[in-house]
Amino acid sequence: SSESNLIRATLFPGDGIGPEIAESVKQVFRTADVPIEWEEHYVGTEIDPRTQSFLTWESLESVRQNKVGLKGPMATPIGKGHRSLNLTLRKELNLYANVRPCYSLPGYKTKYDDVNLVTIRENTEGEYSGLEHQVVRGVVESLKIITRQASLRVAEYAFYYAKAHGRERVSAIHKANIMQKTDGLFLKCCREVAEKYPEIVYEEVVIDNCCMMLVKNPALFDVLVMPNLYGDIISDLCAGLIGGLGLTPSCNIGEGGIALAEAVHGSAPDIAGKNLANPTALLLSAVTMLRHLELHDKADRIQDAVLKTIAEGKYRTGDLGGNSKTTEFTKAICDHL
Amino acid sequence: SSESNLIRATLFPGDGIGPEIAESVKQVFRTADVPIEWEEHYVGTEIDPRTQSFLTWESLESVRQNKVGLKGPMATPIGKGHRSLNLTLRKELNLYANVRPCYSLPGYKTKYDDVNLVTIRENTEGEYSGLEHQVVRGVVESLKIITRQASLRVAEYAFYYAKAHGRERVSAIHKANIMQKTDGLFLKCCREVAEKYPEIVYEEVVIDNCCMMLVKNPALFDVLVMPNLYGDIISDLCAGLIGGLGLTPSCNIGEGGIALAEAVHGSAPDIAGKNLANPTALLLSAVTMLRHLELHDKADRIQDAVLKTIAEGKYRTGDLGGNSKTTEFTKAICDHL
Ligand SMILES: CC(C)[C@H](C(=O)O)[C@@H](O)C(=O)O
Ligand SMILES: CC(C)[C@H](C(=O)O)[C@@H](O)C(=O)O
Repeated sequence: SSESNLIRATLFPGDGIGPEIAESVKQVFRTADVPIEWEEHYVGTEIDPRTQSFLTWESLESVRQNKVGLKGPMATPIGKGHRSLNLTLRKELNLYANVRPCYSLPGYKTKYDDVNLVTIRENTEGEYSGLEHQVVRGVVESLKIITRQASLRVAEYAFYYAKAHGRERVSAIHKANIMQKTDGLFLKCCREVAEKYPEIVYEEVVIDNCCMMLVKNPALFDVLVMPNLYGDIISDLCAGLIGGLGLTPSCNIGEGGIALAEAVHGSAPDIAGKNLANPTALLLSAVTMLRHLELHDKADRIQDAVLKTIAEGKYRTGDLGGNSKTTEFTKAICDHL
Repeated sequence: SSESNLIRATLFPGDGIGPEIAESVKQVFRTADVPIEWEEHYVGTEIDPRTQSFLTWESLESVRQNKVGLKGPMATPIGKGHRSLNLTLRKELNLYANVRPCYSLPGYKTKYDDVNLVTIRENTEGEYSGLEHQVVRGVVESLKIITRQASLRVAEYAFYYAKAHGRERVSAIHKANIMQKTDGLFLKCCREVAEKYPEIVYEEVVIDNCCMMLVKNPALFDVLVMPNLYGDIISDLCAGLIGGLGLTPSCNIGEGGIALAEAVHGSAPDIAGKNLANPTALLLSAVTMLRHLELHDKADRIQDAVLKTIAEGKYRTGDLGGNSKTTEFTKAICDHL
């Protein structure tokens, strides 16, 4: 039966506007006949001791088994004694690469119309080690950790991705002129991997210079790979170039072939439940998930429909200057499928 | 005599195009009757053991005594056993704040026309501690150090500067959601100082979000203060918004009231000695030096003449799309004085 051909994928609708934009994805997937069966998991209301966070053990197991998932925004509950939800996911599922394709949306005008790049961020170590220490009152230090294993892993993914997506250049972003050992090791690993891909141009760009080049001429870049904090900074900078986090897809790659796509914007509690949210980032993230599954036909159809709807401009949500409801925008996309 | 009223200032013409653009500053200052007498120092040709770098002890003493100076680009000679020239200056003169006014130049078109902000970067510690360590092969760490002393000092300068320049808002840039202790201490110091300036709006912005906001709408910012690496990144990003490092002034504030203004662009060896260099960054840096000396009349006159010359567009150097010589551009500025 067709039932048995369905791919099971975990869905974390998340908080705030999460359920509404997740509903939009489900509807678009149904309309496009995407062979996916969702396994929904919500963030728990108390701390699960096995994860030390509000994420349940079962929800993590679901991603581990399905190896593929989609995640809406999650607001980390305030208070002590538990870990941030996003950081828990990264740690527990070993989501070692955060991948963000960032391209100008036709018809949605910003100051830039020629952005077409992908940031690939190391997602597990670096400045996010969590190791901090007060030496004496008024003197604190934090430890940045760079390992050969994690650097090679993300560099390998970057070059694999570049090749698989027909991209021509990989730029490693660093500050090795100051952090010669840590960022130096990161670069060394990138160079090693680069040698295995002679068809791909490899270059190294210092982070301060990279940010200047990005705002002057983002077309200079293709695929960028970098340690954790630089990736955090540069991927948001790039999102800004094309209009913000509400439009930018993201996908996390984890050990064992896991792909957890996610909308990286906030949960927007002020407009939650009002049918006003823009589902674009979650939809385009879902598209990256489909590409990871090599369902390129479905991915293309959905991406085209989303972009066409935005380009036409007749149905746009409030954040894009329109006044459509989430459901109207979603219906317009479905009509384009 | 008028001679005795002259203020002595150290001048480091620097390498590459340095001497040519320094000549331009000297000529403009002469024409504007600026009461400054330059004490010129060049980078040495061998390592001075007292500074562990190619900078001579005498040149540093000159800045310490004059308390005011101007610096062209310096190319750190390649090879081991000595310190970077820029880092030596920062360490030896305790240049704790790097100040970069960043404003759209009228008539020089970029994607942004409403930039008018100042970045103030902590310049002595943080990720620039130089402490790095290989734990085992393939695992290296580097130490970021934040102290109450240096954080208070730069925060105090930021608020002092904001007030003295009639600016309304100070934004502290951080990543305290991840580095709670280090960046947390930095924020704590900023908050303490902010309390003494109730007339100035104080806010805190996470660095990734800050970069996104800067590329979307830089007019959201006024004065930004931040730890070393974030300042390195954000000040270059901001320079990119208005056209690049060739147009951006910079001034370093050191202990004991030292002000060392500098052009932060490179020494451009390819065009050195060809009368092609753009002296704008060094000229506008010299203007920040005059403001530090409270010579506001002279500062205004020179800044106006530089901006007018660029705005008219008749004389522009190659980097700005024109074909004027350095000396022609300089003469045009002098004619506007
Ligand atoms: C919320 C924060 C901890 C997180 C990060 O710094 O990684 C966010 O900025 C992101 O990029 O997912
Ligand atoms: C050259 C480099 C060491 C320096 C820095 O990182 O501080 C430069 O980028 C700067 O901003 O002056």
